Amino acid sequence: MSRPPGRKQENHKISRELFVLTYGALVAQLCKDYEKDEDVNTCLDKMGYGIGVRLIDDFLARSAVKKCRSYSETADMIAQVAFKMYLGVTPSVSCSSAAGNEFSLILDKNPLVDFVEELPAERASLCYCNLLCGVIRGALEMVHLAAEVTFLQDRLKGDAVTEIGITFLRKAEDRKHKR
Amino acid sequence: MSRPPGRKQENHKISRELFVLTYGALVAQLCKDYEKDEDVNTCLDKMGYGIGVRLIDDFLARSAVKKCRSYSETADMIAQVAFKMYLGVTPSVSCSSAAGNEFSLILDKNPLVDFVEELPAERASLCYCNLLCGVIRGALEMVHLAAEVTFLQDRLKGDAVTEIGITFLRKAEDRKHKR
Repeated sequence: MSRPPGRKQENHKISRELFVLTYGALVAQLCKDYEKDEDVNTCLDKMGYGIGVRLIDDFLARSAVKKCRSYSETADMIAQVAFKMYLGVTPSVSCSSAAGNEFSLILDKNPLVDFVEELPAERASLCYCNLLCGVIRGALEMVHLAAEVTFLQDRLKGDAVTEIGITFLRKAEDRKHKR
Repeated sequence: MSRPPGRKQENHKISRELFVLTYGALVAQLCKDYEKDEDVNTCLDKMGYGIGVRLIDDFLARSAVKKCRSYSETADMIAQVAFKMYLGVTPSVSCSSAAGNEFSLILDKNPLVDFVEELPAERASLCYCNLLCGVIRGALEMVHLAAEVTFLQDRLKGDAVTEIGITFLRKAEDRKHKR
């Protein structure tokens, strides 16, 4: 997405609180719409996918990053550049498979749940932040990387950290990444 | 809302693009849920009200603003401090009634509609950004100011600017404002 030259950088930024509360309203609406947590999760993932597909252009334009040469570089890029840019946090990254195609983004603090104490008992299977998985999946697909993205741990569910798992669906050795 | 002392200011900020796209997903979901534009508008306003009611504490804590002594000061505060803080834009303010209780916030550019070209023909009555009206209404109510907040003009509907009208429901002379 191109930017008029006179536009100030600060205009890209908004307060997180408004976003967090608006996101909460979205999840609450979906919980009204769908009885099953799984359906809410699927819907959030789909919405996120649509967002990721559109957000990638903005990301590539603003980050001016080079092509990633490995899954590992791609995972680092998501954590260190994309999360930082869009959510103001930097998850740590670990590779969790010998094949080198599975990574975890680990968030000590999840910026999307500031106002959420805990999930209601009847919503125990809700992946509250599942939109993020969809965003990552959609954005990766637009740079020709198929991936499964899911929450592996969630502090909202009592886990010690929040962990997003990314499994790239083709091995790093198979092909050179395309942007 | 209190903040741990070590927390960096930048952590309050996120990229607007993610918010704008997430907000778009919310409106799209409501358009699926409700056939009538008026119902979508009402729902957005209600959601916004709930957000405003919670956001006001954050606003008062972070802005450290003093009590406003008039409706005019309050309107300026919304435009110059709150809009700037939460959306990164500063609408201009004009008073539109002799009684001094009606104000317009005029946005040359509405940051919530970056990715929206125009409303679909079948959604001509949709107030796409109606959440904002609810947020303002909810936040004002928490500082004991009753107000009606509506879109008077909307660039998405072909108007030259986007204009949010705020009508304070008691006259400035009637009472001293409470925070």
